[in-house]
Amino acid sequence: MRESDLLAHIYGRSGSLAALDPDIIVGPGDDCAVVRSHSGDPLLLKVDQLVESRHFAPDTPIDLIARKAIARTVSDIAAMAGSPRWGLAAALLPHAHPHADALFDAMARWARHFGCPLVGGDIAMWGADHPAPRLSLTVTIVGQPIARPILRSGARPGDDLYVTGKLGNALASGRHLSFEPRLREVADLLAALGDSLHAMMDLSDGLGRDAGRMALASGTRIEIDAPAIPRSDGLADWRRAASDGEDYELLFAAAPGAPVPDRLAGTPVTRIGRVTPGHGCVALEPGTPPIDISTLGYDHADH
Amino acid sequence: MRESDLLAHIYGRSGSLAALDPDIIVGPGDDCAVVRSHSGDPLLLKVDQLVESRHFAPDTPIDLIARKAIARTVSDIAAMAGSPRWGLAAALLPHAHPHADALFDAMARWARHFGCPLVGGDIAMWGADHPAPRLSLTVTIVGQPIARPILRSGARPGDDLYVTGKLGNALASGRHLSFEPRLREVADLLAALGDSLHAMMDLSDGLGRDAGRMALASGTRIEIDAPAIPRSDGLADWRRAASDGEDYELLFAAAPGAPVPDRLAGTPVTRIGRVTPGHGCVALEPGTPPIDISTLGYDHADH
Repeated sequence: MRESDLLAHIYGRSGSLAALDPDIIVGPGDDCAVVRSHSGDPLLLKVDQLVESRHFAPDTPIDLIARKAIARTVSDIAAMAGSPRWGLAAALLPHAHPHADALFDAMARWARHFGCPLVGGDIAMWGADHPAPRLSLTVTIVGQPIARPILRSGARPGDDLYVTGKLGNALASGRHLSFEPRLREVADLLAALGDSLHAMMDLSDGLGRDAGRMALASGTRIEIDAPAIPRSDGLADWRRAASDGEDYELLFAAAPGAPVPDRLAGTPVTRIGRVTPGHGCVALEPGTPPIDISTLGYDHADH
Repeated sequence: MRESDLLAHIYGRSGSLAALDPDIIVGPGDDCAVVRSHSGDPLLLKVDQLVESRHFAPDTPIDLIARKAIARTVSDIAAMAGSPRWGLAAALLPHAHPHADALFDAMARWARHFGCPLVGGDIAMWGADHPAPRLSLTVTIVGQPIARPILRSGARPGDDLYVTGKLGNALASGRHLSFEPRLREVADLLAALGDSLHAMMDLSDGLGRDAGRMALASGTRIEIDAPAIPRSDGLADWRRAASDGEDYELLFAAAPGAPVPDRLAGTPVTRIGRVTPGHGCVALEPGTPPIDISTLGYDHADH
């Protein structure tokens, strides 16, 4: 079973957490959870792991490992239309790792850079007896919605579908280490669209798989115009753009006629399709039947 | 360098986070961080890791691994005089681990049991190429103070020093897997003492080392009457009780004359010493010079 399917399965069984605790607004399954503090302030909560030989190559510079660990989780906060506020970082390192200090320094620096200073952490080292220890980092970020959280489940038939930036080739190009979480873009988008912004998520496992998740969560169908998918420079095949993964761009659904800007904070925005009644996620190419792309995407478990 | 020293070193350099963000009330270094939401609600934030062959033996039942992962972090929330509210769990597992499902189920069940349902999580699996993968769990809990957070830095000369329960032998006896986080005890203590409760922390690395940290954080000296240390059944040597670690009991300082109950929620409470001007943490035995016990405790990095 894929990791993502396993997690969905586990949480699908856990029932409605909101029934358990009225201060849980959104439980597991979206980019972040949404809970409510004593006075009613909504809080966004997210945890993510970064694992050597899975999410970065063993020879990756410490600073880029630290950056990616923080930025990936920041991207989830952004995708809920939130601002990151505070971070917690845990590192599990090989015994007597010579760069533990530099790694935590770099995580603290990037966390401050993205607006969520590290307020806590934990370091553990594998024992000297571990024959093949590898590095892993776990980052938790607490955020606050800029105005209201935007969920992946809010897409409605009739909405237009958009992405920021260009998709594909993030691993091969190294962009998976240097991407900019779309914090400014989200703030501008929310200001431009207000209530017309219906659904949003970040793209981590590839457009096909992630758009399929938005369709499923929203109880709708998503149709993507394959030729419209913005491809990274040099990428000829739209299937690569829709499946390579690790894009950390935004996918969002907006009401028809909403004044979606061509660029947000300098980043291009492209209309790539629409939300319709039904279910599933398909790509449309002129002259061919619709292609189911909801299982096309990258799953970390495959790599 | 020990893990705990490394973390202290890293955070010591990071300067005053409160100056960076006025909503950070307590940064790294206490049992939990304390931050403040938009409306001013204080929130407790804590992350901790549980690592195979470090914090539990490889043949430990899944349910006890899950319980310890959650309970350890709950204990930190309790030690700040808080209530756990929401949890996030991340698991890093061997490839195709057969019990991933049961492990997450058990974590979710224990999290609900302790009052902090899991609202998010992440599962990653080591690749099939990893020659010796081991299991690790990272748990983040967000809590809210019952009334006000009680810090380890609040001890004042003249205070009396207390512990709950009995100390020592937690690893050998298996109590490190089955301890009860002192949530009810803390609620009762706060109700009994109010403002007379000055400082508190949980005991994870042994009384000597942890009391040394309270003394350092408070800018005071702590004197412990060695014969008064409550020892686990069968434990003759107070040094063992003060250094074995993994007790997850409460250490607290209260104003002289404060009405500290003999028992809290059924758990015995013992006066073990006092807070004085000066620095360091010593044990006093009749007829011998004071013994520095601030480096006596268990450090996970040693094991």
